[in-house]
Amino acid sequence: MRLISFLLNNEARLGVEAGGRALAATELLDSGPRTMAELLERGAAGLADLRHAAHPSQIEDRGIPVGKLALLAPVPRPGKVVAIARNYSDHAAEEGLAPPSEPAIFSKWSTAVIGSGAEIRWDPELTSKVDYEAELAVVIGRPARHVSVAEALDCVLGYTCLNDVSARDLQFGDAQWMRGKSLDTFCPMGPVLVTADELPEPGNLEISCRVNDAFVQAARTADMYFGVAELIAYCSRSFTLEPGDVIATGTPGGVGHNRKPPVYLRDGDEVVVSIDGIGELVNTCRFEGPDAD
Amino acid sequence: MRLISFLLNNEARLGVEAGGRALAATELLDSGPRTMAELLERGAAGLADLRHAAHPSQIEDRGIPVGKLALLAPVPRPGKVVAIARNYSDHAAEEGLAPPSEPAIFSKWSTAVIGSGAEIRWDPELTSKVDYEAELAVVIGRPARHVSVAEALDCVLGYTCLNDVSARDLQFGDAQWMRGKSLDTFCPMGPVLVTADELPEPGNLEISCRVNDAFVQAARTADMYFGVAELIAYCSRSFTLEPGDVIATGTPGGVGHNRKPPVYLRDGDEVVVSIDGIGELVNTCRFEGPDAD
Repeated sequence: MRLISFLLNNEARLGVEAGGRALAATELLDSGPRTMAELLERGAAGLADLRHAAHPSQIEDRGIPVGKLALLAPVPRPGKVVAIARNYSDHAAEEGLAPPSEPAIFSKWSTAVIGSGAEIRWDPELTSKVDYEAELAVVIGRPARHVSVAEALDCVLGYTCLNDVSARDLQFGDAQWMRGKSLDTFCPMGPVLVTADELPEPGNLEISCRVNDAFVQAARTADMYFGVAELIAYCSRSFTLEPGDVIATGTPGGVGHNRKPPVYLRDGDEVVVSIDGIGELVNTCRFEGPDAD
Repeated sequence: MRLISFLLNNEARLGVEAGGRALAATELLDSGPRTMAELLERGAAGLADLRHAAHPSQIEDRGIPVGKLALLAPVPRPGKVVAIARNYSDHAAEEGLAPPSEPAIFSKWSTAVIGSGAEIRWDPELTSKVDYEAELAVVIGRPARHVSVAEALDCVLGYTCLNDVSARDLQFGDAQWMRGKSLDTFCPMGPVLVTADELPEPGNLEISCRVNDAFVQAARTADMYFGVAELIAYCSRSFTLEPGDVIATGTPGGVGHNRKPPVYLRDGDEVVVSIDGIGELVNTCRFEGPDAD
């Protein structure tokens, strides 16, 4: 099943997509979940109910074209975003780093999360080194604490694309990466969450990033040092992963900061993160002044 | 007004404290907010309604002794915890660091948040260097983005005590601090949130930490490099602070890691963070095995 969140009358709503069209979950199912948060609260039973009710043919017949919807991130406001650094061999190499012995964890604030079609915005007086990072994002469906690698994928609701937008000057100029990774709009996710049953091999997907239609990253998730199950098991040894939490599994080589000379995003640039079987996360960059909000 | 969150029938509830006793907000006000999250949604008007209804004498007459309640953190699950490193001169000095030119931001995940009276728990096979950090915590009451220093305190709902518990081996062994700062139970907050009107000078409070009744940190918030208003204004230039977000304003000198020889917390230790006019945040340390959950 392919789940989206979108704005309807200024409120977040959950929808199901098929063939480029979508219907609200409440139109597919009496007393269906209004939002992704409600679906997550209902757990596996709620997901099964919705799947049972969501006939692709009905959605394709009656649905609204997804292009006409104001998409939010599938999980509009995750409880936390757990991000993994240097998890692809070519990216670790371009950073001049040895293969990691265990996953390197950092984070992005969920106030940075936006959906496909929304603008990535920043004040050029605050940062002049904004970069893209295409990533496979894992959305947790049930609480995970002290789970084994064998059990880990049972905790996954599904997968989506994520752009780990990074202000390199702030990331490396500050004592910690947090601020440079978490400016408002710096965590695009989407366009759609594909449930785990429809993406049984998250470790063997093509992933790419294009800027203004030129490929800047292209890899397979098979190149990750630590796969999805290992990442979940590792995290769950230290802290609880909760439904709606997101793991951003790291980015392949090719980021702008490591190019010679470095290349950064500019006003008007269109960035597309694309993953096999999920879709394309499309965001345009926009400079803003400090009074723009 | 002094606000608490506590467990009633396994659900978080909002209460008002006076003279060591507390009543649920719903008992003070017809259709009063059931939870801190509901109070935050209602904004300034909701706060004014509750303040109008909360007569200290009524709470002292009819209330339940706070010691009999299972306290949660006043904000049981903040949207984000913005933490500030090296914000006291004596702590920066013991870390061998020059005075910072601007606030150094990091974060703790909100899954780490617990209340006063709950246990700080960790697996001694995961970390053997757990440390305390007494901090003044600011709770945001209204959205803050691009606010000036002069406007900043208008965005504060109130203040509470916070213990920025830190696994030093993970904090400094990992590429980033996030995991070592965010083990489950590593963000005690409380016991009570004191609204900003009752604490007009957050920059001039005594703050201390005791371990097993011995003072290990003692300072005044006047020793912070960046005060509450400056921190809010600084953060709001880069990202949005939302109602319920917490700023942990940094810790004074005296942390165990910088003692010679270093001293770390052990099973059974009682840690008390105390701040003028707020109260005492009390937590006991407990080792747990990986199967304890």
